[in-house]
Amino acid sequence: MTRTQERTATWSPRRARAHFRAGASAPTAGWSRGHTQANLIAVPADWAYETLLFCQRNPKPCPVLDVTDAGSWTTVLAPGADLRTDLPRYRVWEHGELTDEPTDVLGHWRGDLVSFLIGCSFTFEWALAGAGVPLRHIDQNKNVPMYVTTRACRPAGRLHGPLVVSMRPVPPDAVGAAIRESALMPAVHGSPVYLGDPGALGIADLDSPDFGDRVDRAPDDIPVFWACGVTPQAAVMASRPPFAITHAPGHMFITDTRDAQHRVT
Amino acid sequence: MTRTQERTATWSPRRARAHFRAGASAPTAGWSRGHTQANLIAVPADWAYETLLFCQRNPKPCPVLDVTDAGSWTTVLAPGADLRTDLPRYRVWEHGELTDEPTDVLGHWRGDLVSFLIGCSFTFEWALAGAGVPLRHIDQNKNVPMYVTTRACRPAGRLHGPLVVSMRPVPPDAVGAAIRESALMPAVHGSPVYLGDPGALGIADLDSPDFGDRVDRAPDDIPVFWACGVTPQAAVMASRPPFAITHAPGHMFITDTRDAQHRVT
Repeated sequence: MTRTQERTATWSPRRARAHFRAGASAPTAGWSRGHTQANLIAVPADWAYETLLFCQRNPKPCPVLDVTDAGSWTTVLAPGADLRTDLPRYRVWEHGELTDEPTDVLGHWRGDLVSFLIGCSFTFEWALAGAGVPLRHIDQNKNVPMYVTTRACRPAGRLHGPLVVSMRPVPPDAVGAAIRESALMPAVHGSPVYLGDPGALGIADLDSPDFGDRVDRAPDDIPVFWACGVTPQAAVMASRPPFAITHAPGHMFITDTRDAQHRVT
Repeated sequence: MTRTQERTATWSPRRARAHFRAGASAPTAGWSRGHTQANLIAVPADWAYETLLFCQRNPKPCPVLDVTDAGSWTTVLAPGADLRTDLPRYRVWEHGELTDEPTDVLGHWRGDLVSFLIGCSFTFEWALAGAGVPLRHIDQNKNVPMYVTTRACRPAGRLHGPLVVSMRPVPPDAVGAAIRESALMPAVHGSPVYLGDPGALGIADLDSPDFGDRVDRAPDDIPVFWACGVTPQAAVMASRPPFAITHAPGHMFITDTRDAQHRVT
């Protein structure tokens, strides 16, 4: 870990959110150790049922941690937080097209927006590290690499799209621990969806991720793929709702809840 | 186990559903060993979002296994099944009042009904038995006892109501296994919500359950309480939607899916 990483790993969620609220921006991998990070997708109320149903039908990429009332920017996951300002970077979507990537969405907010906070695989990274699984992207000070796959999610009404995955290169002797530790946290994507040949998921080149950063692999590392909370963004791109706000990939909402709360035993 | 229990434990889900479709009725505890049973709640489409949100906000009592499209009586959990006929007994509700308790709902069905199939604690009973936890209600050929508690669920729009729990008396030396085995199946209620003094949940008398049967306890048994899929019925009673159809407590929908699929490791 770099000195910067060591520092932000010890920041409280409240301090990290205040930092981002003041306009700072950075990928949040490794921030606020032990606290749960979340993906954001906010849609107009008349798309909320299909979004929630899409999440229910695709629980591995879309484990829902909280849903707000329409127009509300507060969440039980972080009392005092403001969902419009406290993420490091947002994406604004109109009819499936990315129209802005600001550090707050005060000027884009609407009274009919329902926000979904969705579990993030960063949550189980500390458990992986604790079990001896090296985290290559953290060691290399990178965002985790993410890929759009050729696997379709189960649609819900007007919402459809491909599965998005995150990838971590894991040494063979650590694959068991990586599977076990993540499986025990089903509310934050759970066990991997696939490991090995990226071609089976329709990924042409591991060195060209669709989101996040390219990460160096050791020669015998096995690529391990987890379902990713960017999947709802891919559904927004594919399904073209009139309006949506999401986080920017890797730029998560840091909640006050503890990773350990998501562990089933 | 009685001979009847041994027999129905070996029936395929398809055979059990055909039996109920033909008009038979019985509590399904112990039926179709290894196959997942589900609670049913069907509500008009304009109550579907609040029902799904109620489930998301109360995942321990209401783990959603499938949601149908409006009017549909089929489910991915059991291809070929008919949700209107294949449960052993139903309850029909108008404005929160129980108006009928038939063995099919062909005459009550509506084109705007959205059906929710919710995980059932019967699913983890085989795992408990396999880990040496005695199942008193099965041994005594009873339905599991269920109780309305004084704990409120987190409301969702117009839907609110109390937590309902099932109770199994567990010998002290088996409590660890009971907690661990059920925790590994979060999609079917997961770990217990409470154990010990029933008064803490507002249960006045363990021998007078609100649903199901009274079960004999050994002197040193500890009452262990799991969140129960009858909770949505209690929400129907409390929140009074104009119309709803549910299963009768303990009279579950037997799906084709395997209990093992719900185990996280």
